[in-house]
Amino acid sequence: MRVVELIRTKRDGGTLDADDIRAFIAAYSRDEVPDYQVAALLMAVYFRGLDPGELGAWTDAMLRSGDVLDLSHIPGAKVDKHSTGGVGDKISLPLAPIVAACGLSVPMVSGRGLGHTGGTLDKLESIPGFRTDLAVDRFVAQVADIGVSLIGQTAEITPADKRLYALRDVTGTVPSIPLIASSIMSKKLAEGIDALVLDVKVGTGAFMTTEADARVLAETMVAVGERMGKRVVALLTDMNQPLGQAVGNALEVRESIDVLRGGGPDDIRELTLSLARTMLELGGADPDDAARAVDDGRALAKFREIVAAQGGDVAAIDDPDQLPTAAHVEPFLAERGGYIAAIDARLVGVAAGCLGAGRATKEDVIDPGVGLMVHARLGDAIDAGQSLLDLHHNGRGVDEARELLKTAYTIGDTPAKAGPLVIGRVG
Amino acid sequence: MRVVELIRTKRDGGTLDADDIRAFIAAYSRDEVPDYQVAALLMAVYFRGLDPGELGAWTDAMLRSGDVLDLSHIPGAKVDKHSTGGVGDKISLPLAPIVAACGLSVPMVSGRGLGHTGGTLDKLESIPGFRTDLAVDRFVAQVADIGVSLIGQTAEITPADKRLYALRDVTGTVPSIPLIASSIMSKKLAEGIDALVLDVKVGTGAFMTTEADARVLAETMVAVGERMGKRVVALLTDMNQPLGQAVGNALEVRESIDVLRGGGPDDIRELTLSLARTMLELGGADPDDAARAVDDGRALAKFREIVAAQGGDVAAIDDPDQLPTAAHVEPFLAERGGYIAAIDARLVGVAAGCLGAGRATKEDVIDPGVGLMVHARLGDAIDAGQSLLDLHHNGRGVDEARELLKTAYTIGDTPAKAGPLVIGRVG
Repeated sequence: MRVVELIRTKRDGGTLDADDIRAFIAAYSRDEVPDYQVAALLMAVYFRGLDPGELGAWTDAMLRSGDVLDLSHIPGAKVDKHSTGGVGDKISLPLAPIVAACGLSVPMVSGRGLGHTGGTLDKLESIPGFRTDLAVDRFVAQVADIGVSLIGQTAEITPADKRLYALRDVTGTVPSIPLIASSIMSKKLAEGIDALVLDVKVGTGAFMTTEADARVLAETMVAVGERMGKRVVALLTDMNQPLGQAVGNALEVRESIDVLRGGGPDDIRELTLSLARTMLELGGADPDDAARAVDDGRALAKFREIVAAQGGDVAAIDDPDQLPTAAHVEPFLAERGGYIAAIDARLVGVAAGCLGAGRATKEDVIDPGVGLMVHARLGDAIDAGQSLLDLHHNGRGVDEARELLKTAYTIGDTPAKAGPLVIGRVG
Repeated sequence: MRVVELIRTKRDGGTLDADDIRAFIAAYSRDEVPDYQVAALLMAVYFRGLDPGELGAWTDAMLRSGDVLDLSHIPGAKVDKHSTGGVGDKISLPLAPIVAACGLSVPMVSGRGLGHTGGTLDKLESIPGFRTDLAVDRFVAQVADIGVSLIGQTAEITPADKRLYALRDVTGTVPSIPLIASSIMSKKLAEGIDALVLDVKVGTGAFMTTEADARVLAETMVAVGERMGKRVVALLTDMNQPLGQAVGNALEVRESIDVLRGGGPDDIRELTLSLARTMLELGGADPDDAARAVDDGRALAKFREIVAAQGGDVAAIDDPDQLPTAAHVEPFLAERGGYIAAIDARLVGVAAGCLGAGRATKEDVIDPGVGLMVHARLGDAIDAGQSLLDLHHNGRGVDEARELLKTAYTIGDTPAKAGPLVIGRVG
């Protein structure tokens, strides 16, 4: 395997040999391929793509670059969910305990927020004491014990993906569907799961802004997962406005608790239950049990178990007023009346980030209490001077956030209608 | 200038800002841009190209990465020629003295052979004692003194091109027309010339195998040269068979001397005079003087002056039998009779390289005496068992060369006709 030959083959639109791909990823993991050759290959892949065979080999090689969890001693199906990321997307928080409460195992390895999207880990860590940096053996033990654990990436899982992702980030090769698909699928399949539900976001707050692109990504991920012997379904879901009301870490935990108590915004409940039903279906359980687990309190009880097992303060779950809050709450007012015609959800996410809810760079420190509470949704009729949302802040980044929010909302004169939340299903 | 933004812009088909390009090349020269970002940008340029404005800025920035020779104190026009490389292409050897003998200055910085092509420096160095590693000030002084000097690349001229080329070589980004054009033109324009004639080869032994590609490269180079205020003309010339008979260093010097003596193969004489006439035209001299300078011995006398000035043994020019020779001369016989229908000139070049006439890697050592003397040309009628060419060898690589030559010649049953040597002119 000569790397320059791989580069030339891909550059010219040819097909890479599966063994060469495996040898390449393995050599890169051993630090035997210079970054400049990898960067050139990644850009060639950006332009030429990977066919299903190449993508399978690439994903498999990434998966095998580190530890692959063995959960075979745990009875029953192990099922996880992955979201491609959106604004206000706290779905994992109510979802994981619901599915675990229905008897499936949920070994969930999540990420942190970067750019305009939040991260499950950051949200969980706004619960005082909650730890997401469990060692792998403790993670596995917790899944065996209570059926669910939520942790962050470890150094042992898919180290090749970590290196590749860092290189993609600085070489303009992040937005490549096969590279996105192999990154996501290698990480998720290394969790030792049997089935996976993908929440592929579409819209102004998603990485994929068009349904066509999102569908290709979904189909690509489902195909590679099935090729590797897993049951995989993707839901295409709307991200043309923030999910729910809360955008910001403790605010989103609070909203998640509302959902687990049977309340919360309609869209959060709907999407959580849609994903839970799909996970239960893939795991061979009764999809209808998802709503029952919320209604009868099993899901909330499971969430308390997770928080307790991971060192979090359960009192803050029972009394969400004990979660971190911001010192100031100020409304953001509509400059004119009309109907909410469009929301640039990405800008809403960036605005929340300005207040301290997210990171512009990996080094930024999160302020758990800050964020936005969104009141106006697509299609809503509003009056001039009505509050579109509240800024929960501690003095940081307020002017910047307001400036962004001004362009985030488009107010029109005719009633508009939001599209369906779940747009389609692949697999 | 954030390099990742440049990469993304080019990746998405956008136009890079000229100042950003200059800042990028300058930063790369100062070792402030990591190779992996440069590799990604080069691959994006491979796919998206550079528009004339971008290419001008890129070439200018490469040119300014090192010393730009100032020959303004030398009266008259300074004119050079560049060939994109072929097999048996020894044209620079007779050409430079012819043009200098006609009164123009020829400051010629040349390269070494790599792959299937020979290099002017390697050919000159087969003349005992000939030095091509003159310092820049001695090079300039020789041009001022006798009107012509032929040296190799120095560390001071276009260092950014050296780095970029080395990176392109290992990242599959060599065959990009704007990158080829900027590499050639920055090096040539750094010589302090007023005008340049480009010999853009087309055919089986050229980097550009189709006339369409060669024409685009020629047009691109002419445009960037004119944009930078130089007079530039490109000739598209045939490389579907080796030029002349000799392929190999001392053999090519001997053939060059034949031409300077008024003899030599017709194609070498024709191409040399075509290029010389064009150089004289661009330099404001009389094109007809080229043939006269050969016929009256001025060109040969100028070549002797060059050899003497650069430490070479003039006796070997006067008596070419004193040039290095190979110990063995063996014919390569036609397996069947018919007409020479096609020659893979590239394979002929590689075969000569096997004998020691060229390099497969930069570390290989050249054997000056070895090579091929080609007897059969496109369209020639031949009998089975007739010698197509002679191998001049010292025992190295003979079987390998014979194996390659077997597939290099296609013998057909109907008379074929070679195309014109000079196919077209651009500029």
